[in-house]
Amino acid sequence: MAKRRSLDTDSCPVARSLDAVGERWALLIVRDAFDGMRRFGEFQKSLGVARNILADRLRGLVDANILETRPASDGTSYEEYVLTPKGRALFPVIVGLRQWGEAHLYGPDDAYSVMLAQASGLPIQPLTVHDASGRPVGPDDVRVEKV
Amino acid sequence: MAKRRSLDTDSCPVARSLDAVGERWALLIVRDAFDGMRRFGEFQKSLGVARNILADRLRGLVDANILETRPASDGTSYEEYVLTPKGRALFPVIVGLRQWGEAHLYGPDDAYSVMLAQASGLPIQPLTVHDASGRPVGPDDVRVEKV
Repeated sequence: MAKRRSLDTDSCPVARSLDAVGERWALLIVRDAFDGMRRFGEFQKSLGVARNILADRLRGLVDANILETRPASDGTSYEEYVLTPKGRALFPVIVGLRQWGEAHLYGPDDAYSVMLAQASGLPIQPLTVHDASGRPVGPDDVRVEKV
Repeated sequence: MAKRRSLDTDSCPVARSLDAVGERWALLIVRDAFDGMRRFGEFQKSLGVARNILADRLRGLVDANILETRPASDGTSYEEYVLTPKGRALFPVIVGLRQWGEAHLYGPDDAYSVMLAQASGLPIQPLTVHDASGRPVGPDDVRVEKV
């Protein structure tokens, strides 16, 4: 496996984020945590990933303060993994990945899970990007100022 | 390297998206393409990744219809890589990763590049998630209906 170049001192926040969560198991674990999963066995069943890889990824997410461990809510000796506020702040990223997949990776007869607002039962609006005055902006309407 | 389990038939759009772009070089190439980079040498200089890995990732993004190749705009024999509409639709994902990084991965004295709207010079608003009626929703306000 190629030696991984660390981006954790990069001045681009996209690079630094991908250094922390830019590995698909990491974001799938975060997705499952948003869906209410808390236990090693639940993640393992959902992801079908080898136990040693899952243990490694969970440890990485705890080290990065994206997940935290807690004693099991039912009083058993199991540990539970719960999203921290930093982990919960990944919500728009997960929604963005979901919406891109919905729009571009399914055929017309190809069913997928949908995200609905609990209170209204309505689907989620496509994410849109706005400037600080509320004006919608697309990829051609922005520039990145390097430091 | 562990054998990769394909998620490209998964019924969860998050999983299917991560199967397509859930690898940090892929999304860093997409970021660079949004920043206007088009040539192999530009991506290589920006990412500092081995040529064979970059070539592999570029090919994967072309195969996935996220990038397309074009003859060089200056008439030379170079090929250029340009985002397709499907690739451009990743804009909110890149913005989401940027904003999460800005908020959670930098110390107070730690400088980072910023994204500004060209027309107004204003920064970009934090992405927010809304239901179809426009009501803001957080991670506790949604449910995912499995198929």
